[in-house]
Amino acid sequence: MTDKTSTQVGQEMYRFITELYPICRSITGDGVRETLRLIRKHIPLEIHEIPSGTKVFDWTVPQEWNIQDAYIKNNKGERVVDFKKSNLHVVSYSQPIHTKMTLGELKPHLHTLPESPEWIPWRTSYYKESWGFCLTHKQFQTLQDEEYEVCIQSSLEKGSLTYGEYVIPGQTTEEVLISVNVCHPSLCNDNLSGTVLAIHLAKKIRSEKPRYTYRFLFIPTTIGSIAWLSGHEKATENIRHGIVLTCVGDSGGFTYKKSRRGNAEIDQVFSHVFKHSQCEYSIIEFFPYGYDERQYCSPGFNLPVGCFMRTPHGQYPEYHTSGDNLTFVQPQFLEESFSYCLQAMTILERNKTFMSQNPNCEPQLGKRGIYKVMGGQSDGAKKEMPMLWMLNLSDGHHSVLEIAERSGLPFDVLYEAAEILVDHGLLKAITR
Amino acid sequence: MTDKTSTQVGQEMYRFITELYPICRSITGDGVRETLRLIRKHIPLEIHEIPSGTKVFDWTVPQEWNIQDAYIKNNKGERVVDFKKSNLHVVSYSQPIHTKMTLGELKPHLHTLPESPEWIPWRTSYYKESWGFCLTHKQFQTLQDEEYEVCIQSSLEKGSLTYGEYVIPGQTTEEVLISVNVCHPSLCNDNLSGTVLAIHLAKKIRSEKPRYTYRFLFIPTTIGSIAWLSGHEKATENIRHGIVLTCVGDSGGFTYKKSRRGNAEIDQVFSHVFKHSQCEYSIIEFFPYGYDERQYCSPGFNLPVGCFMRTPHGQYPEYHTSGDNLTFVQPQFLEESFSYCLQAMTILERNKTFMSQNPNCEPQLGKRGIYKVMGGQSDGAKKEMPMLWMLNLSDGHHSVLEIAERSGLPFDVLYEAAEILVDHGLLKAITR
Amino acid sequence: MTDKTSTQVGQEMYRFITELYPICRSITGDGVRETLRLIRKHIPLEIHEIPSGTKVFDWTVPQEWNIQDAYIKNNKGERVVDFKKSNLHVVSYSQPIHTKMTLGELKPHLHTLPESPEWIPWRTSYYKESWGFCLTHKQFQTLQDEEYEVCIQSSLEKGSLTYGEYVIPGQTTEEVLISVNVCHPSLCNDNLSGTVLAIHLAKKIRSEKPRYTYRFLFIPTTIGSIAWLSGHEKATENIRHGIVLTCVGDSGGFTYKKSRRGNAEIDQVFSHVFKHSQCEYSIIEFFPYGYDERQYCSPGFNLPVGCFMRTPHGQYPEYHTSGDNLTFVQPQFLEESFSYCLQAMTILERNKTFMSQNPNCEPQLGKRGIYKVMGGQSDGAKKEMPMLWMLNLSDGHHSVLEIAERSGLPFDVLYEAAEILVDHGLLKAITR
Repeated sequence: MTDKTSTQVGQEMYRFITELYPICRSITGDGVRETLRLIRKHIPLEIHEIPSGTKVFDWTVPQEWNIQDAYIKNNKGERVVDFKKSNLHVVSYSQPIHTKMTLGELKPHLHTLPESPEWIPWRTSYYKESWGFCLTHKQFQTLQDEEYEVCIQSSLEKGSLTYGEYVIPGQTTEEVLISVNVCHPSLCNDNLSGTVLAIHLAKKIRSEKPRYTYRFLFIPTTIGSIAWLSGHEKATENIRHGIVLTCVGDSGGFTYKKSRRGNAEIDQVFSHVFKHSQCEYSIIEFFPYGYDERQYCSPGFNLPVGCFMRTPHGQYPEYHTSGDNLTFVQPQFLEESFSYCLQAMTILERNKTFMSQNPNCEPQLGKRGIYKVMGGQSDGAKKEMPMLWMLNLSDGHHSVLEIAERSGLPFDVLYEAAEILVDHGLLKAITR
Repeated sequence: MTDKTSTQVGQEMYRFITELYPICRSITGDGVRETLRLIRKHIPLEIHEIPSGTKVFDWTVPQEWNIQDAYIKNNKGERVVDFKKSNLHVVSYSQPIHTKMTLGELKPHLHTLPESPEWIPWRTSYYKESWGFCLTHKQFQTLQDEEYEVCIQSSLEKGSLTYGEYVIPGQTTEEVLISVNVCHPSLCNDNLSGTVLAIHLAKKIRSEKPRYTYRFLFIPTTIGSIAWLSGHEKATENIRHGIVLTCVGDSGGFTYKKSRRGNAEIDQVFSHVFKHSQCEYSIIEFFPYGYDERQYCSPGFNLPVGCFMRTPHGQYPEYHTSGDNLTFVQPQFLEESFSYCLQAMTILERNKTFMSQNPNCEPQLGKRGIYKVMGGQSDGAKKEMPMLWMLNLSDGHHSVLEIAERSGLPFDVLYEAAEILVDHGLLKAITR
Repeated sequence: MTDKTSTQVGQEMYRFITELYPICRSITGDGVRETLRLIRKHIPLEIHEIPSGTKVFDWTVPQEWNIQDAYIKNNKGERVVDFKKSNLHVVSYSQPIHTKMTLGELKPHLHTLPESPEWIPWRTSYYKESWGFCLTHKQFQTLQDEEYEVCIQSSLEKGSLTYGEYVIPGQTTEEVLISVNVCHPSLCNDNLSGTVLAIHLAKKIRSEKPRYTYRFLFIPTTIGSIAWLSGHEKATENIRHGIVLTCVGDSGGFTYKKSRRGNAEIDQVFSHVFKHSQCEYSIIEFFPYGYDERQYCSPGFNLPVGCFMRTPHGQYPEYHTSGDNLTFVQPQFLEESFSYCLQAMTILERNKTFMSQNPNCEPQLGKRGIYKVMGGQSDGAKKEMPMLWMLNLSDGHHSVLEIAERSGLPFDVLYEAAEILVDHGLLKAITR
């Protein structure tokens, strides 16, 4: 896998976000199905349906929710709040209703953000029967004390939970899990950005012959990963590395949240990538909140799954509001995210452990033509250092990444040295 | 055990110091017996006597020392140094003497503090036959070159070493050892303060049904702990945690000196308490000097016993002088010490390890009514974090304290979350 | 071994450098032989010869190189570059040549340092057939475009590689390896300084009855250590500690480069010595470049061998130039290096592990006359602390050096305390 990104990738990712943006998704229903159908134009997803009522560990797959229309009309018959204008206007999983009520009766069902009066908040009520509308605080303040017609044309019925899965077989059955949620309505960074990043990683990886098998999951958050884990307990034993992708399109610095294990190879890989990058970043410790890493890292599984983000959830004001829109995410940020993620995957693929075939003293590199010829110069062996490090530490106990960490050299430089040394019979990859 | 201290506790502690202050204690003799008799009015001590001459490891219980009176009279017959005015005036374990001598002959037996001319120093000569007087440097400078009558009415005879022991039985035979020395004469911080703190902890703990068995020792320093250890070698196997209390009544910040092990649970507990407090404190490493932790932490025992102080011994000028008086210690400082110590004991009592009863993915807290209902808000799960941490790390390998350290949350908050989760059948305490 | 250095040592070391300086050494040849012959006047070296063509691991002992004369004459017959003036003028291992050529033809064979125009660089071509001259850039710039007579009277023939070895038998067969290279021509810091340091350490150590057996190697760099290791694979099993000495005569601060293991006893010893010194120093991590530690620390051997230097190779402009001369190194710097090195060896010799013979509680030091008599003073047990630390940590798991590290006290102070305690039957050295 080589890291050949062009400005095209960012544009393509952005374009597909634009296409997916208007769809009203929730944790079940036709919004997710339509989303997966569009993804399938890019990669050959398998689409799975899990019937409502299925027990998945401590949870139960909920009824399926669909919505046709919703509005609040004032007494002039004008739609003062209109689902057609923004699918955020309706609390997700709102029950159907059609009635008239006073502003006083309506108010407990209205959600606004007084501190961001121009944005519609996003609210959900997946596991409690309820209904409600979200609107900008500005809209809210114009509401007169009159009677309103309140209508939500939704359905909550037996159906199923839908998710997509795409497996790229590798040279081994050891797996890399890449998981994104596809359950949010018109919100770009959280998480259409992660969705399109996963798609482009998949497109890139399937064009190579990867060492690992890659499993991509496009799932509703929480219930989706729980349902998948519940049905694949045995399969999780093959997962060697994993990553949840979310909030990867904004202009902020990068954030890598470590797996619960804290020192998994994937944790080391992302730390290494960013340490050797020029970008702003922070590596944060695991905590049991956030995205589906909560489930993958639950104590019964404790999978080595981290979470890759730019600005983390809840730390930008646009989060879970209509401000998380097509302006908030931009092609160049998506592309950077793609690039770093690909670098990390490339390191995972290449992070082998070698055994020196000439462990007693240094081999004579000069006679093989891979060492400077004239001795004595004080600039030393700058160019030879990666080879010398690989030879010195390839005792079967240090992976290339571990040698990179100890030497302070970038992974790529050491990997190239390893390839030269393998070509000359001086190193041999081993299974540790 | 709940932490319900009132300003009363500090006052009570101080009042009892006032009562114990005038008694002339030493490592043996009636001063210790009178002290233990007064303590017995508060808690039902058992009083033990170990005969002089008893071998205790490398040591021998010394002869018993008692003193009735002592003075230095000038040639006008005036008591220029008078034991009745301060029991610090006589070097502890001084042999009896009654004779006349010149100032020149007397001087080698006089001890003063030229740098603190208003204070009488405290000196001892437990293990070498000797006699002497201590006086302020100011007094010393007024002494004329004349003949003095020198009298010490003391006795050094076969008798015994006296100590007090109070055991509060717990639900288990695993023990917490709390040790204080009661061998210093009129010195308040060192160590009437530790003595009254131990008494009030004992009163508090016996009013609960503690998990641990608590053993309180009121002993003469060094020889007392050696004698006790010598007679209880087998019993020490039950000691899980221990603490020496001393110098806890002055106005300085807190000091916790770790056990020789350096990472014992008691060490972690005190570190946690102070890290989450607002007070000035320092956590210091073990060193083989100080109080009876020297003996408990000798290599043959290596017990997990720390030392809890405010200003450590030797680091305040009043230390081991008449300046360590009833003004130097104050009720509010005693009370603070009591409060932090009780917090530590409470954590010890509560520091269990739980096992999640639902380790695969998160349990659905919402259906149990212990999770926020409306989703989407960006303030996240602030209130739920303690529950989420407890669930995520209760894999049998993390105690509540270890979860507190990893999460950065205070112990109490996690313990309350654990109690809720136990009530809902989601956690179960285990024996690790 | 006691540390009794006088200003004489530095003078003697410097004087011997002066004697060795003019000799034209290379990795083989009579220059090395003459050097070893002179060293033999100080210590009874065994001199070994390994025939050209001998396989030593991945390497082959090269042909022997000797040189009588070399010059470049201008068309007036003047020697514009003259080997007699500096043996650096000829690239080491230059093949014989005698011909005429234009400046243009000559230039590819000329090496200068434009950034240090007054210095002749030192260049080698051990493993590639070649020839060349080194000269100051200033000289180079005066060369006219004329025909030159170029002459190198050297020989490259079957012969042998010569090295010296001196073993001081100790009380045990466990060895300390001290290795220096003797293959550089007229360069003082690198490495006549290391050579004379090794000689003086040997003279000092053989005057004691050391615990360890000391093996001193005087070898050509790289091929010398490879050849020695190749012939002594089994013998390396006895090596417990080792050090390469180089660049120890300049005015810079000290540098200790750790062994590949990173926490070997020799690493801890040098760290301790410098931590408790007043001098400027840095302790650096191992890297697979530098001197013969590269070979000793190759993965097949992984010996606990560090490298002791003042300013490291390549970090001073005089390095590998004629600037590394008799002015660049000075007696006082050589002597300091000797002193610190000897301190380290002394600690190695003394770094035993003791077992307390009285592990239960402290022994009563007072009755043995090794404890202050009068109690109560606030200056505490300053003088007794080393004894108390030794007694507290001598549980069979802490060497004196480890106790020094934990207590923060200097090794010597603890070792003296240990000797007192051994005399009183309170400690006993054990084999760990």
